[in-house]
This record gives sequence, structure tokens and C-alpha cells, in this order.
Amino acid sequence: MGETGVLTRPIVLASGSPRRQDLLGRIGLAFRVMVPGLAEERLPGEEPPAMARRLALEKAVWVARELGGEAIPGTLVIGADTIVVLGDEVLGKPADAEEAYAMLSKLSGRTHRVLTGVAVVEIASPPDGFVSRAEVEETLVTFRPLSPEEIWRYIESGEPMDKAGAYGVQGLGSVIVQRVEGCFFNVVGLPLPRLARLLKEFGVRVL
Amino acid sequence: MGETGVLTRPIVLASGSPRRQDLLGRIGLAFRVMVPGLAEERLPGEEPPAMARRLALEKAVWVARELGGEAIPGTLVIGADTIVVLGDEVLGKPADAEEAYAMLSKLSGRTHRVLTGVAVVEIASPPDGFVSRAEVEETLVTFRPLSPEEIWRYIESGEPMDKAGAYGVQGLGSVIVQRVEGCFFNVVGLPLPRLARLLKEFGVRVL
Repeated sequence: MGETGVLTRPIVLASGSPRRQDLLGRIGLAFRVMVPGLAEERLPGEEPPAMARRLALEKAVWVARELGGEAIPGTLVIGADTIVVLGDEVLGKPADAEEAYAMLSKLSGRTHRVLTGVAVVEIASPPDGFVSRAEVEETLVTFRPLSPEEIWRYIESGEPMDKAGAYGVQGLGSVIVQRVEGCFFNVVGLPLPRLARLLKEFGVRVL
Repeated sequence: MGETGVLTRPIVLASGSPRRQDLLGRIGLAFRVMVPGLAEERLPGEEPPAMARRLALEKAVWVARELGGEAIPGTLVIGADTIVVLGDEVLGKPADAEEAYAMLSKLSGRTHRVLTGVAVVEIASPPDGFVSRAEVEETLVTFRPLSPEEIWRYIESGEPMDKAGAYGVQGLGSVIVQRVEGCFFNVVGLPLPRLARLLKEFGVRVL
């Protein structure tokens, strides 16, 4: 942190999400992927934005620790966590089709929040350890009203099963999301303008 | 129009835009592409929404006429036209780097409108001719403030040159678009929820 000018640093994306890998690739950064081994659970009384921020940071720190002394000092690790929030309820990834149906029924015709925490951790030379920054981006998403038949057909497409809130905005879900308010890529899983600004603080220029 | 139940009909996309082809492919529709040969000009005194709607319809009708008697009756032709509007000014595709710079400078740090007209034309049996529907979707897009150096680097990436308003939201432009309000895919070039609703009126179910 604090460098001026443009640096090229090794970048590691701490996420197994193919959607995040696709987004990061689009903005022209070279990076490799390492999937963190973490339980993504909400702490008692934890507010959703604090949860998204904490999990993003924990994922990046997990990977930074795993890389440890092997990493070139100055390596940046990017972590992200996306959660879907309706009222006070955090909607995770559905365990089965029935849970996906319950989630999509709740989201139908209503506006919910999508929060993505994004963290950048710099692996510094020992004994400095890590330097990190973590933030949260919020986007409002409105679903059009869905009939039970439409919800079942969407579940049958297979798209809902590995996604928070049981939907994705990249495929068939794109005909369900009627309106967004805020950063769109945040809904996909990585708020690109915010991430670009964070990376700039670590001397990496995206544009 | 007016059918009940689900039909599978031949679908033709009247657009040479690879972005529109990608979007239409995502929602699982089989289609072929035919590029209309039209001048995309604003008529004297024409309001931007009327312009987007007219051009979308003209593109679809152009292709429907070209297909003529060869097409299977019931074939649907989809036309679309996207325009970028700042205040009263319609920003087209930039002719050169200087024009791209001028457009991006105007858009920097401000909110503009993206209007996509979308039309569906059904090729009916003679002597009925065509049955058509055309609508317009509007999305507000806010750019983050850009420095002159950032604008030039973006132009050097080559992304601005074939796009209305001199930007695309799919690639590097994703770090410039800070906020959208409305349908996101409209900004890419095809308002998918609205198109799905229009297709449903012609008996084609997307979800």
C-alpha cells in the first residue's frame, strides 16, 4: 500500500466461483485461482454487511496464509463473498429443490439486497505479515412476479442450485431480474469499479 | 399473436451485434442471425425513445421483407436498437478516437440514459403480411469520474470504437460504470425480461 505509479504484482483470486473468474478476466488482469477452505456461516447477531466483509477478508487471509513464505512479497490476494438479503433474512445456497422453491417464492415480485464483500490482502515481507483492505458494495435487485410453474421450470434448468438466493443473473435468471439499482457486477459476484479502486491503492492500475 | 400454449417457432435476430447474439443465446432460444442493411439516423425533431423504437422495428421489418416468402409462416424476427442519450443529445458510435474522447469526457462523472428499442415481427401467411410489436426500455447509467489519461487508455484498448456512446459495459468498461438503475441487459443491447414478455405474446415461452 502507498506505492505510486503502476506495479505489476502477482494476483491470486481466492474464489472457486467461475463467475468471479470470468469477471476478473474481463478487466485484463492476469491472476491465478486458489480456493479457500472455509465455512461460510453467519455469526450470532452479525449484520449482513459485516458478514459479507468478514467472509471476504477471511477467504483472502486463508489463501494468503496457505501461500505463506512461498509467495513473492507484494502478491495480492482478492477475496469476495456475496450474500442475498431479504428483510433481515440472509439467503444462502439452497440445499435442495424445495429450499430453492421457497427462496424464489419469497423473492418473486419483490426487491432484495445483494451485498458483496471484497477484500485485498497484500503478502508483505516478513515480519510485516499482511496489509489488507475490505469493503462492501450493496445493490438492490427487483424480481418480476413469477408463477409457481415458472419457478419450477427455473429450478429444473439447474441454474439455482449453487447460487446464493437460488438464482443467477448471468443465464436464464436474466429474464427474472427486472431491475437493478447500483453496481451490476456486484450481483454477479465482484463489484468491479470498487475492486479497481482498491487495487489502485495497492499500486495496480486497471484502467 | 394470440396463441395460447407454447409454440416453437423459427426465430431470426435482426442484428449483427455479437453482444445481442450472446444475450439471446443465454436464455436458451435457438435462432439465426440476419444483419439488416439500414441507415441508423435520427429524423428531424424525433424524440430519442421514438427513434429507438422506430429503428428496432425498421430493422426487424427489413429482415422480415428480405426473408419474404422463403420464411416459414410464424417465423419471428427480433429487432433492437440501442441509443445513448445525454441531456438532449444522442451519442452514436464514434467516428474516430477524437470523437470517442469527446463523448467519454461528456459522460465522465455523470448519469445518462440508455434506450433500447425492441421489436418482434411475425411473418404471417400471405396476404396478412406482418404482425408486430415494438417497445422501449430505459436504463440510467452513471459513470465514475474519469481522468483524461484513463479516457485515452480506454480508447487505446479499442473497446469504444464500435459502440454507441463510445463504451461497452461488458469488458474494461465494467470498471467505469459505477451504477445502473433499471434493466441491466438493456445497456448491453437487449432488455431480456421485456423481450421475454413480448415473445410470450407470440406464444414463445422463455421460462
